[in-house]
Amino acid sequence: MNWESYVRKVVPYTPGEQPKKTHMIKLNTNECPYPPSPAVQKVIAEFPYERGRLYPDPTADRLVGAIAEYYKVDKQQVFVGVGSDDVLAMTFLTFFGSDKPVLFPDITYSFYDVWADLFRIPYETVALDDAFHIRTSDYERENGGIIFPNPNAPTGVAMALSDIRKILDANRDVIVVVDEAYIDFGGESALALIDEYDNLLVVQTYSKSRALAGSRIGFAIGNAKLISYLNDVKFSFNSYTMDHITIEAGRAAIRDEEYFREITQKIISTRERAKVELKQLGFTFRDSASNFIFATHNEMPAEQIFKALRERDIYVRYFNKPRINNYLRITIGTDEQMDALYQALKEILPC
Amino acid sequence: MNWESYVRKVVPYTPGEQPKKTHMIKLNTNECPYPPSPAVQKVIAEFPYERGRLYPDPTADRLVGAIAEYYKVDKQQVFVGVGSDDVLAMTFLTFFGSDKPVLFPDITYSFYDVWADLFRIPYETVALDDAFHIRTSDYERENGGIIFPNPNAPTGVAMALSDIRKILDANRDVIVVVDEAYIDFGGESALALIDEYDNLLVVQTYSKSRALAGSRIGFAIGNAKLISYLNDVKFSFNSYTMDHITIEAGRAAIRDEEYFREITQKIISTRERAKVELKQLGFTFRDSASNFIFATHNEMPAEQIFKALRERDIYVRYFNKPRINNYLRITIGTDEQMDALYQALKEILPC
Repeated sequence: MNWESYVRKVVPYTPGEQPKKTHMIKLNTNECPYPPSPAVQKVIAEFPYERGRLYPDPTADRLVGAIAEYYKVDKQQVFVGVGSDDVLAMTFLTFFGSDKPVLFPDITYSFYDVWADLFRIPYETVALDDAFHIRTSDYERENGGIIFPNPNAPTGVAMALSDIRKILDANRDVIVVVDEAYIDFGGESALALIDEYDNLLVVQTYSKSRALAGSRIGFAIGNAKLISYLNDVKFSFNSYTMDHITIEAGRAAIRDEEYFREITQKIISTRERAKVELKQLGFTFRDSASNFIFATHNEMPAEQIFKALRERDIYVRYFNKPRINNYLRITIGTDEQMDALYQALKEILPC
Repeated sequence: MNWESYVRKVVPYTPGEQPKKTHMIKLNTNECPYPPSPAVQKVIAEFPYERGRLYPDPTADRLVGAIAEYYKVDKQQVFVGVGSDDVLAMTFLTFFGSDKPVLFPDITYSFYDVWADLFRIPYETVALDDAFHIRTSDYERENGGIIFPNPNAPTGVAMALSDIRKILDANRDVIVVVDEAYIDFGGESALALIDEYDNLLVVQTYSKSRALAGSRIGFAIGNAKLISYLNDVKFSFNSYTMDHITIEAGRAAIRDEEYFREITQKIISTRERAKVELKQLGFTFRDSASNFIFATHNEMPAEQIFKALRERDIYVRYFNKPRINNYLRITIGTDEQMDALYQALKEILPC
């Protein structure tokens, strides 16, 4: 089979388990423990299904418009995609065309190196310091672009806006992408800097703080020229990616500011309580500004805890990777779910 | 702005107009004139919106399973994507990695050269004969892969399975993709050949015969090894592309065989009547096996007719491209819509 030699062979990203048990406690993929806004329910219930025969609006104008309004930017500054993964993949394809390496942290979102490999983009990872912080001085060197999450994943550690500014100031000639999947849980958004830096792209998602992982909505905000290049590539890939219901659900969700504040505040409160509880149980972790805590235990190996929890139908995330293979990434669930977790941990951990 | 030099600059695909008038007759993007199956309505109406907080099944197993069942193949032989455009883009990226040119017709789906340009894939177009037929002998030469629609777009001309077999026999060492967006309106599907040819990939869509352009569902069927390579690339791009509602809507639609037969039969009947009517109005066209007719008028230039129809809020598709710039692609609508079209044409055309 000679055709095999022309196949693009890749090592695909492995998403977190999506077990289908009814009674499990799912704290492994950073989903929101609360349902989407009731406004989303209304949109779905009232959707005129006959419209399904027609192509959706390729520009997703009503969704783009609602996001632009919410963040007080022009529509021309907003790009939407099928989850932030789609937005980030398009970003790699569009902007990382240099033969110099793209830089990102060694401990970070595990899709970055997958996209780089897929699109044959050279890259180098930059080690976080031992406290899991990004050292801005490490990014003051020749490169083909920079990307990092803030707060970082899976560490949960947030970076100050002043540090992001340092990286931007040292890198005016390449695109700097700040991946803000978890920003609504406590970080400072780099959106404050987009008017100042034409090479800054901020990416966010509906999958966490908007409780809509199931709808697949991500977006990027930056200067209009960046967005127009992204759209050109997107329209060269697939014109119609956002379906009718998704466009309307996304619009409804972002306009329900009150509900958004309510659920993010609840998650933050539960997280702060989790910090106390987990510490008491013998875990240590860096301060998290996200909807998860990345923790290591003083006595029991992470993998062992991971397996013991799974036997109790409690799913957290374990990465068998250098430097982090003794950590668990625990998504913040409801208070009830977290209580069940603490109870299970009390049973599992050595007294 | 030095970053501009690293941007992937492309000439994006231009989709057909999606005007938003309420009283227009829309015969320009080959949508189905009938609503989706009532089973789709039920799925949407009954969707438990709370599930929206969770990621969908990344394997879209329930959709893949329903498609596999319908076409009597293994689940491992089915790949799904966000419309057939997504499936085809992934196909280009996965399989067209040779430095020899990919071959496709000069008159064909206008996305092929866009994808080739986007992914820097070398290609050559092969001229259709004057009757708009693919000459199989033109494809008996060294190449990096072959793709063509059957029936072809925008011509509507179908190719016999025996001809497809000739192309396959001459090209065992590259991937041959048959893009069957319009197959349900009269062509012979190459699915009959997938067990014989491990290098054959058949791509279909829900956007035409399944009346679900708005849901964005496409799929590919081929041998399990091809599908697994496609999935590797897809999972390297975006793990979660098919949302909950889409998975269930797609499943419901393909299981409603009766409704599918009813609407495709109606479209075929309307098309056959359109052939008579358009001929009487002075149009000539090749026999169409699709849900559109690609016609040229004996006296009036196509662009002029296109504009005159648009003034009457009747939208058809006009391509300002070599060899076809005197043709209109007219989607088959309902009988009532087609009657309005004939009436308008009678007013526009010289007696």
